[in-house]
Amino acid sequence: MTQITESVSALIDQFARLPGIGKKSAERLAYHILRLHKTEALQLADAIRDVKENVRYCDQCHNLAERELCNICEDPRRDATRICIVEQPRDLMALEQSSAYNGLYHVLLGRVAPLDGIGPEHLTIEHLVQRVRTGDVREVIMATNPNTEGDGTALYISNLLQDFDVEVTRLARGVTTGSVLEHTNKEILADALSGRQKL
Amino acid sequence: MTQITESVSALIDQFARLPGIGKKSAERLAYHILRLHKTEALQLADAIRDVKENVRYCDQCHNLAERELCNICEDPRRDATRICIVEQPRDLMALEQSSAYNGLYHVLLGRVAPLDGIGPEHLTIEHLVQRVRTGDVREVIMATNPNTEGDGTALYISNLLQDFDVEVTRLARGVTTGSVLEHTNKEILADALSGRQKL
Repeated sequence: MTQITESVSALIDQFARLPGIGKKSAERLAYHILRLHKTEALQLADAIRDVKENVRYCDQCHNLAERELCNICEDPRRDATRICIVEQPRDLMALEQSSAYNGLYHVLLGRVAPLDGIGPEHLTIEHLVQRVRTGDVREVIMATNPNTEGDGTALYISNLLQDFDVEVTRLARGVTTGSVLEHTNKEILADALSGRQKL
Repeated sequence: MTQITESVSALIDQFARLPGIGKKSAERLAYHILRLHKTEALQLADAIRDVKENVRYCDQCHNLAERELCNICEDPRRDATRICIVEQPRDLMALEQSSAYNGLYHVLLGRVAPLDGIGPEHLTIEHLVQRVRTGDVREVIMATNPNTEGDGTALYISNLLQDFDVEVTRLARGVTTGSVLEHTNKEILADALSGRQKL
């Protein structure tokens, strides 16, 4: 690739460092940028810069924010007696898109993962306990990922919260809407059976 | 998506405008940028800016360049008696990667496509004729895309060049190395038969 210009080569390298973008896709993206009108291409560059300069974590729930508080914590219509615990801001976005929840959140910014050297002290758990202690929280909903580390994190937090007058719940587990039982694995079916509900 | 910050939303929109990147991938890329260290993220922003500010077309062959001439036209070891005609800079890169060619190039920056309103006057064909007239070119190799428009463009150019003392050739067509005849279509097999070579 000695025949490519230095700037184009640098741009391909930068694109190729993004997740899910291989060498070929990075080349295609770079050539797309080359063909774009300058103002359009700079909009992407500026959007990246803006995000890094303006986006911070919410002082209350650690969601993404552009002020001290995020849009959710600032919204007086949200039910402040409920806190839903998620690992990352994108989990929060997924839950928001379901439109099924009207309470507040607490973003852990990770999960307890001893094998990766991530202990509870690396997360925002201490701040969560403080919120539960000082606020009028009545329910804490665990929405960490339904896998070993997510479940472990939820268990750790629910132990911490057992001395408080707060109900700790977790997302329901069972078969997924639209799936077929025949192709559903045994762990999912066991969850669905043990958590069966009255019709 | 009212709960997302304005900057993040703008970045997702910008990523989603890139070719081959859907809404979900754009979200994943934006969250990746959010997690990156600021200097790393700004490297991508700067790479985009650099490309738009530094990259131009070579004055001689219209390849991408950062000076008047591209790296290939500047290289005295290249054989200036041969010019290979391609549609776009990325076609040139593909040929360069084969390491099978040591001559110069001429990038048309498109192909004749009457249905899209692109006539020969929108391409760099006039400049090519001038190069053939004034240089010591002995062979012009057509490497436009092997489809209707590419072939039409090559035919148009070879007609223009027939009064010059220059050999006009085109890339060989046939079966592709590594393919299986059983799954090769009849056009390819017809090309391969009519262009058959002595063993």
